[in-house]
Amino acid sequence: MRAVYLTAGTLSVRDVPVPELPTGYARVRVRVAGICNTDMELKRGYYGFAGIPGHEFVGDVVEGPPELLARRVVGEINLACGQCALCAKGWGRHCATRTVLGILKHPGAFAEMLTLPVENLRVVPELVSDEEAVFAEPVAAACQILDQMTIARGERVAVLGAGKLGLLISQVLQAHGAAVVLYGRHAAALDLARGWGIAVARAGDASPAAEYAVVVEATGASDGLNQAIAMTKPRGTVVMKSTVTGSVAVNTAAAIVHEITLLGSRCGRFEPALELLASGRVKVAEMIDARFDLEDAALAFERAETKGVLKVLLRCAG
Amino acid sequence: MRAVYLTAGTLSVRDVPVPELPTGYARVRVRVAGICNTDMELKRGYYGFAGIPGHEFVGDVVEGPPELLARRVVGEINLACGQCALCAKGWGRHCATRTVLGILKHPGAFAEMLTLPVENLRVVPELVSDEEAVFAEPVAAACQILDQMTIARGERVAVLGAGKLGLLISQVLQAHGAAVVLYGRHAAALDLARGWGIAVARAGDASPAAEYAVVVEATGASDGLNQAIAMTKPRGTVVMKSTVTGSVAVNTAAAIVHEITLLGSRCGRFEPALELLASGRVKVAEMIDARFDLEDAALAFERAETKGVLKVLLRCAG
Repeated sequence: MRAVYLTAGTLSVRDVPVPELPTGYARVRVRVAGICNTDMELKRGYYGFAGIPGHEFVGDVVEGPPELLARRVVGEINLACGQCALCAKGWGRHCATRTVLGILKHPGAFAEMLTLPVENLRVVPELVSDEEAVFAEPVAAACQILDQMTIARGERVAVLGAGKLGLLISQVLQAHGAAVVLYGRHAAALDLARGWGIAVARAGDASPAAEYAVVVEATGASDGLNQAIAMTKPRGTVVMKSTVTGSVAVNTAAAIVHEITLLGSRCGRFEPALELLASGRVKVAEMIDARFDLEDAALAFERAETKGVLKVLLRCAG
Repeated sequence: MRAVYLTAGTLSVRDVPVPELPTGYARVRVRVAGICNTDMELKRGYYGFAGIPGHEFVGDVVEGPPELLARRVVGEINLACGQCALCAKGWGRHCATRTVLGILKHPGAFAEMLTLPVENLRVVPELVSDEEAVFAEPVAAACQILDQMTIARGERVAVLGAGKLGLLISQVLQAHGAAVVLYGRHAAALDLARGWGIAVARAGDASPAAEYAVVVEATGASDGLNQAIAMTKPRGTVVMKSTVTGSVAVNTAAAIVHEITLLGSRCGRFEPALELLASGRVKVAEMIDARFDLEDAALAFERAETKGVLKVLLRCAG
């Protein structure tokens, strides 16, 4: 089959063997996949990645249990061992020996076919289009915030960073009932959010101090966390969503003096994400910038790396 | 009256006016005061401090309401406005316009006399000696952890840093029922903790990875936080207690991937601290290294700054 292959910063599209199908797994023919910031970081050498990237996808089950055959699915990206204490707790996304679709030791979605354990697959509701379904994974990551903490309806919440994840988080928290203010630098992204009824503000030096009980840091930049801490009220919470490679210089004294909680937040459950996409309360169509065929993956990555560009999609199995 | 005076890194003992007594305040004749790491940082220029330092004390009320006159007291160090939204919530320790005894715009305890609002004072139980009572403030800071989070009885908790605060935190959490392991570098401090029935370990490169659901960072060093993050289980909590000046290089990606909570923690309520001291469940006498007269404050600071030295006390009003 054809697949994108990354090694030491080089991207190629090549023929690779169709992945094997262990017991308990299903084979999925990938319709559409999305390029995420993590994929671009893998291309830059993050994690020393070599293999097939891609973890945002929608596809059709072509081999697997009868109840899933020919069903349109998305899939949770963490493949847990199912045996350890963390898995027993239901925390498979933290299993120490997990592999991760397209990120860690499991071939990814930028290919004609992928395999995943059956338990990772979620059938996509009819109301959700293919291109919307590709967003299930990042929307789930946004929803994870609400699985980790209580945000009161009406609570004013600042989201820092109007990139793909910041835009999704803003919508998820607004749909939950929070009064979101999205801080960003790109006018086009802020206009998009404003169109969805989200309050927006230009990020910058004039950001208000100690103003919000909850601030979500999704800038993807290493100076975002200090800005988030400065904007948080005493005893408030900063949700950390930007996995910046290497060390971040943090004003920990400010977090301690104001007794702020810094909450690390990563992947989430797909169920609430699919519900939000099906209900239309989280809108993603306008975030799609371009579509490329799998063969043109190099061009697709180039486009995705362009400043201000939001989601770039790959049509994988034609 | 005589008082220690710090300005731009210079310590002197001089005559100063006895502080004024606003309505609602009491005047306290200071028996004994303790030198804290914060005092040493103020001496180094932290906060641009100029004035009388000192915030750990025990003394006698010499002017104030009848029910407190001649009573032996300790005092909460944050002087709140009592009017703002944070004060209305009972969060006076976070009042934005607060002053802080011996730290921020309120003359401190390294003097013959100090003043505090009556509401800040707590009568010391008979069972608590003067020298023990001086520890009420740092013990309260240790107790604050239990006001901020739930720690199950039997939970294994790592405390990093066997300095004064780490030793107190270890005792408070052990008294609460946690199974504490104290990591430190100074053999004498570890021996002290072992004598109190606390499990101890040498801090170092061999510290176990992802081993504890709760890790308290009290090293006072800028590399302590990354070590704490590395030792914390997925979805665990690092309690941040070390207010290091300036920026700390933090591996935030590790905290995000493992969804770790970093909890800033500062001052606490005095009531549980005085109870723990009265019950003998928190032992402090062995932590006292030396006592100096107020006039010898320069020598006292020099002693307190010596590596491995724990608490140094000042006898203030003779």
